[in-house]
Amino acid sequence: MFAITHTDKQSRARTGVIQTAHGDIETPAFMPVGTQATVKSLDVNDLNTIGVQIILSNTYHLHLRPRENLIASMGGLHAFTGWNKPILTDSGGFQVFSLQPTIRLSRLKDKSQNAKLVKIDEDGVTFRSYIDGSTHRFTPEIAMDIQHKLGADIIMAFDECTPDEISETYAREAMERTHRWAERCIQQNRKNKLNQSSTYSADKPSLFGIIQGGKYKNLRQESARVISSMNFDGIAIGGESIGYNMQATKKILEWVMPLISDTKPHYTMGVGYSPLDIFEVVERGIDMFDCVAPTRIARNGTMYISPATKERSKPSFTLNINNARFRADQSPLDPTCACFVCTHHSRAYLHHLFRVKELLAYRLASIHNLHFFLQLMKDIRKAIQKNSFLDLKNYWKQ
Amino acid sequence: MFAITHTDKQSRARTGVIQTAHGDIETPAFMPVGTQATVKSLDVNDLNTIGVQIILSNTYHLHLRPRENLIASMGGLHAFTGWNKPILTDSGGFQVFSLQPTIRLSRLKDKSQNAKLVKIDEDGVTFRSYIDGSTHRFTPEIAMDIQHKLGADIIMAFDECTPDEISETYAREAMERTHRWAERCIQQNRKNKLNQSSTYSADKPSLFGIIQGGKYKNLRQESARVISSMNFDGIAIGGESIGYNMQATKKILEWVMPLISDTKPHYTMGVGYSPLDIFEVVERGIDMFDCVAPTRIARNGTMYISPATKERSKPSFTLNINNARFRADQSPLDPTCACFVCTHHSRAYLHHLFRVKELLAYRLASIHNLHFFLQLMKDIRKAIQKNSFLDLKNYWKQ
Repeated sequence: MFAITHTDKQSRARTGVIQTAHGDIETPAFMPVGTQATVKSLDVNDLNTIGVQIILSNTYHLHLRPRENLIASMGGLHAFTGWNKPILTDSGGFQVFSLQPTIRLSRLKDKSQNAKLVKIDEDGVTFRSYIDGSTHRFTPEIAMDIQHKLGADIIMAFDECTPDEISETYAREAMERTHRWAERCIQQNRKNKLNQSSTYSADKPSLFGIIQGGKYKNLRQESARVISSMNFDGIAIGGESIGYNMQATKKILEWVMPLISDTKPHYTMGVGYSPLDIFEVVERGIDMFDCVAPTRIARNGTMYISPATKERSKPSFTLNINNARFRADQSPLDPTCACFVCTHHSRAYLHHLFRVKELLAYRLASIHNLHFFLQLMKDIRKAIQKNSFLDLKNYWKQ
Repeated sequence: MFAITHTDKQSRARTGVIQTAHGDIETPAFMPVGTQATVKSLDVNDLNTIGVQIILSNTYHLHLRPRENLIASMGGLHAFTGWNKPILTDSGGFQVFSLQPTIRLSRLKDKSQNAKLVKIDEDGVTFRSYIDGSTHRFTPEIAMDIQHKLGADIIMAFDECTPDEISETYAREAMERTHRWAERCIQQNRKNKLNQSSTYSADKPSLFGIIQGGKYKNLRQESARVISSMNFDGIAIGGESIGYNMQATKKILEWVMPLISDTKPHYTMGVGYSPLDIFEVVERGIDMFDCVAPTRIARNGTMYISPATKERSKPSFTLNINNARFRADQSPLDPTCACFVCTHHSRAYLHHLFRVKELLAYRLASIHNLHFFLQLMKDIRKAIQKNSFLDLKNYWKQ
């Protein structure tokens, strides 16, 4: 299902094609996040126009609303959303472990419930809904079953995503449990695919394993060897610091990349806040990544701009359209950009829409920011194939 | 600029074409409302796809933000918004007089300021911004100047829009003042158009007068005669009850329509909450109307559906997508509708988007509701030309 089409002569960067039941994905690929069965503010036509190849949806959120059985009864996520191209679902592990602590103080009405929001045992995890406090349980088997019902093309093993600052003892305990869960995910995925009575096995989803181990070199390397030895279709690198802390991310990639199969797709989960972050992981042999940043910061008025745009304050590739200096600026957001927004609207108009809080603001900003990342990926793939990836990286870094 | 192409043999309904510098408008025409230089949640491509011919923008709101001088410096509303088809701007009269009382209690921090929010004198009106409480002044001349700066194709005379329950004495006083203001608007419009130094006179906007007179037959008829005798390009019927109270609207139209010029376009301001309302005014010879309802109620999940749709509860032509019975409903919103939403998405998906408050919900709902009204207008124009307008009305009324 994965074929490498070219490897850069000066780095580990490579281009490839992932084949799925819903079409091919050219790698390296950026995956926009559609948490609740929609990439926020955009419709399926927008995604096609922007050139999106694959979207990521969140198992945790879809399990809570509208629930996997509803989506299955509608024919799966593709039919439910109208998006006919590939979909990847995460396993819910990241949200269960890292979203809960941040919401427990603000959302739950009964503060006394805080203590036991997430309870981990060998078999799985019990957690409370951030919406209504109701109790839910994920196990490796349940996470597989939910993702099968959602009908994604690529699904993820259920893992324990540990915080950065955890002790080595606990990081090892969690990692070893994640490895045992990984094996159970493989078994359950096989079972679901063989289950002829299941209408959700038709797509035969690919299953990716996830390397954990926190900030500890020995654990990361052990996890890389174990996950790499298992019968996964792709290898992901997970953990709270991936994408969030790029120094840590680069260090972890240096530890694990030499140890994992070159022939499988490599996926860093949560990378893509800055274009430079993408260059760093692609250079190290990563094929896929997702990040909520382009659409999330769009809704605050933060727009990505190319290196040539004079308004950028280095090293950032963004401008804040709320800034008063754009009030009467007739130029497009990014004069080098060919997206719908940059070819139809001025900074002044966008500034106005944000100032008066019009819904169109969030939509136009999201279109531009996603187009920016998708165009960057096209440029990166082209550069790799011409063995000029590092030149392109240097152009962006200068 | 206005040519009647056909008059129904059984009613006063008629088809026509209004020519403007930005293209023709086939009448009867429904005008979506783009209060703050955007039809909420939609972009210009959406409006073109839906078949929108003309949008209405609000002088009051644009004067407060981003201000008319900014829009003028950007080349006018068309250049600022990217909408290249006709635009009508209201005069701000309706908002100054009827929006202020509803906001004064909820928005202003200093409640003691309530008493003098709107102060009317012979020359004009002084009012406070609903945003920051700052003081502003509209006179007939200022309202004309602002609309010239905005650069609309059709502009409206500055009138005093009186509440339904006003005394006859005050209604007469306000009406007579509105007539004096109407003459001043004509003079100022002429002056602005002749003013070669103004870059905003190129479009030579059409100017419509507005009939007032509240609920009083003698006043309405007097206003109809006076406004009709003036040198306006079109005749509007205004007042708080128009559109809002259809019994009163029909009565007022019966009073005034026989008295106004047949050769000018007729515009009821604020009509279009229900399809039946549109039939009522078109039957009485109205050519244009605007209403915020289709987009406003869309954002609450209220969707227009055609008479044939079985879920409709008569006499309404709406369904509320938030209703739990649509949770697993795979059918399109309106099975007879050809809009993007009905051809791509199920009620279940829309129900989910509304339930989780995704921005896409508001956009899709707005697309459907506006398409519904624009399609209705196409059907009405076709029916008039075949002299079957009353048959179409009866089909909808049954």
